[in-house]
Amino acid sequence: MNKNLLFTFICLLVLNFSVQAQEALFGAQPITSPEIHDDSSVTFRLSAPNAKSVQITGDFLPTVKIETPRGTFDGPGKAELTKDDKGVWTYKSEPLKPELYGYSFIVDGFSTTDPSNPFLIRDVASVTNILIVGKGQADLYRTNDIAHGSVTRRWYDSPGLGMDRRITIYTPPGYEKSTEKLPVLYLLHGAGGDEEAWIALGRTAQIMDNLIAEGKVKPMIVVMPNGNVIQDGAPGEGSMGFYKPQFMVAKTMDGTYEGSFQDIIAFVESNYRVQADKAHRAIAGLSMGGYHSLHISRYYPNTFDYVGLFSAAIMAREDATGKVYSNFDQTLKAQMDNGYKLYWIAIGKTDFLYDANKEYRAKLDSMGMKYTYVESEGGHIWRNWRVYLSQFAPLLFN
Amino acid sequence: MNKNLLFTFICLLVLNFSVQAQEALFGAQPITSPEIHDDSSVTFRLSAPNAKSVQITGDFLPTVKIETPRGTFDGPGKAELTKDDKGVWTYKSEPLKPELYGYSFIVDGFSTTDPSNPFLIRDVASVTNILIVGKGQADLYRTNDIAHGSVTRRWYDSPGLGMDRRITIYTPPGYEKSTEKLPVLYLLHGAGGDEEAWIALGRTAQIMDNLIAEGKVKPMIVVMPNGNVIQDGAPGEGSMGFYKPQFMVAKTMDGTYEGSFQDIIAFVESNYRVQADKAHRAIAGLSMGGYHSLHISRYYPNTFDYVGLFSAAIMAREDATGKVYSNFDQTLKAQMDNGYKLYWIAIGKTDFLYDANKEYRAKLDSMGMKYTYVESEGGHIWRNWRVYLSQFAPLLFN
Repeated sequence: MNKNLLFTFICLLVLNFSVQAQEALFGAQPITSPEIHDDSSVTFRLSAPNAKSVQITGDFLPTVKIETPRGTFDGPGKAELTKDDKGVWTYKSEPLKPELYGYSFIVDGFSTTDPSNPFLIRDVASVTNILIVGKGQADLYRTNDIAHGSVTRRWYDSPGLGMDRRITIYTPPGYEKSTEKLPVLYLLHGAGGDEEAWIALGRTAQIMDNLIAEGKVKPMIVVMPNGNVIQDGAPGEGSMGFYKPQFMVAKTMDGTYEGSFQDIIAFVESNYRVQADKAHRAIAGLSMGGYHSLHISRYYPNTFDYVGLFSAAIMAREDATGKVYSNFDQTLKAQMDNGYKLYWIAIGKTDFLYDANKEYRAKLDSMGMKYTYVESEGGHIWRNWRVYLSQFAPLLFN
Repeated sequence: MNKNLLFTFICLLVLNFSVQAQEALFGAQPITSPEIHDDSSVTFRLSAPNAKSVQITGDFLPTVKIETPRGTFDGPGKAELTKDDKGVWTYKSEPLKPELYGYSFIVDGFSTTDPSNPFLIRDVASVTNILIVGKGQADLYRTNDIAHGSVTRRWYDSPGLGMDRRITIYTPPGYEKSTEKLPVLYLLHGAGGDEEAWIALGRTAQIMDNLIAEGKVKPMIVVMPNGNVIQDGAPGEGSMGFYKPQFMVAKTMDGTYEGSFQDIIAFVESNYRVQADKAHRAIAGLSMGGYHSLHISRYYPNTFDYVGLFSAAIMAREDATGKVYSNFDQTLKAQMDNGYKLYWIAIGKTDFLYDANKEYRAKLDSMGMKYTYVESEGGHIWRNWRVYLSQFAPLLFN
């Protein structure tokens, strides 16, 4: 060793020791979980020598009916893990279809994340592990070796809400060096979500990068705002600090967001190189964001040529007394009469909002307002919303 | 209810039911943890009716000596939680100093995250919960009601490494609308980190926003690259997909990164509105990133006027045979002779790299190379690196 080259030899063992001590303290385990096999089956492992039982629950398991005092609910099933003589519990799945899956362990009745898998997604206040299995649709959710867009967390001024607010913006590959003006998709989250939801749970950047690389989607800017008007940013990212997020917060479906949405459009159109006209604006959202998209596109009835309602929470709420919700039929008819390119409605067959969407389609039928309807398997789940985005985006700006 | 206004009344109960079912399945618990009290003590809670013992470990507890076959190690202590008749375990801390803390629970010997706290940080492969307590230094880690910079995840072309690579870039408030050219701080992570480390664990955006708002730091761009040259992006974000990150990966300290660093500077200086000269470039890093900063600033000895070594891993490695590491004394003397404004070295008194840094300072003394030295309490921990950043950034570009 060249003593003059550097000054102290601290062998790799020291660093290894340090991280092993850290792992021992903070819970990472020296096992592999999940392990995805060539046939797309997956082995999950958990070291818990003292546990009496370990189960796994996740959306790769067959759905089961769950009875609660409030009714019967479709939820992910559970499976038992088996313990070996070293205290490591194991479960091997059937070969799985290509998908991004979520799962948790249940150790002696206590729900917990997988300490061997650092990939986690927060949905409202719940954190679950994720994995991606297989090719096909699942490849859309991967970062592949192609050109990548940029994802920026910015803050915009909302005069309508009286605060600066955090917003997530995807720009397609090459945007920074190009001079071309681009169209914009406004993509809205559901109840309990925020400006992180579509990027994290929805894999929006990966889906857009992959579909743009395949030539299936036009390069566009995707704007992901925060639909909770009492927040300036996602939990942990805004000035409200680290607090436990709730499924429904105040003022999310009372018209305030829809009535202040022009603040977001104005920000985007004065800060990005965009085509600022109806033909180059799309709005879509999931669940509560579908409700918002319905109302925003109707309340500003000559603003969007493309509307997407993904499992839209089309419902009357007792707090929906805002000006936005008055003159519903009149503004919807104005939207129809002004013309548009696409009004796209998608929902799963077992979604609890299925009937609400059916009634809404009947209303559109009765007034002669054209729409495209897609009915999928499954319920009110992110798996469907990722698929809907990958189906909707190719239809835009053609 | 106005039947014409909308079509189906689906009461809030349905949505509440949905999320409660989800919480039951995915582990969020209807309790509050952590609860930060007015006197800065904190109550932690965990519902685990079947557990025989629940402990908490975290860096708010007094450090303890941990004996291992490889030696004695300073680590966070543990405390016992107490069970009530509903199966909820509780621990209340002493009043805590202002800080961002990490913690985990240990349920019957099994290390787990807190299912009531969705705020988690990944450090290498370990995921722990976090909370922020108090004011003062801790206020630098919060998102306060001030002007905010933007944080962008972009991809740059690295001809030196033959791939597109992900990079995280902070631009200060107003950058997008200004015409002013800004200085740049290149901020490098440690072993096991990546382009997410300084943003997530380091709270860089919050620290910079807050210090800029207080007028203590000059507006600057902060560039946070990935120092693992075999990766194109962080685990889960790059084309290697979701895999368990390791503390040390191949080729991190063999000179490849330092030798290709000009790719990053070239990308920044051709894509951002910057002052592209030595007087307006700073480079700093923690641990392995301190080692990289030492070598990059020496190997390109007329490039940076500001160098920061935070708990730098100054060590000779047997794989450090690259051209970058030859002519060490000669290039270091060239760096000295070319002049610079600041060479800043900081380390904690109990850091395992303390002696290595002491020897390096002796070398600098012997050759008459000036530096500023800061010695803090504590060891090789993120708490120190956040503090070092908040001390180093105000010294730049004055």
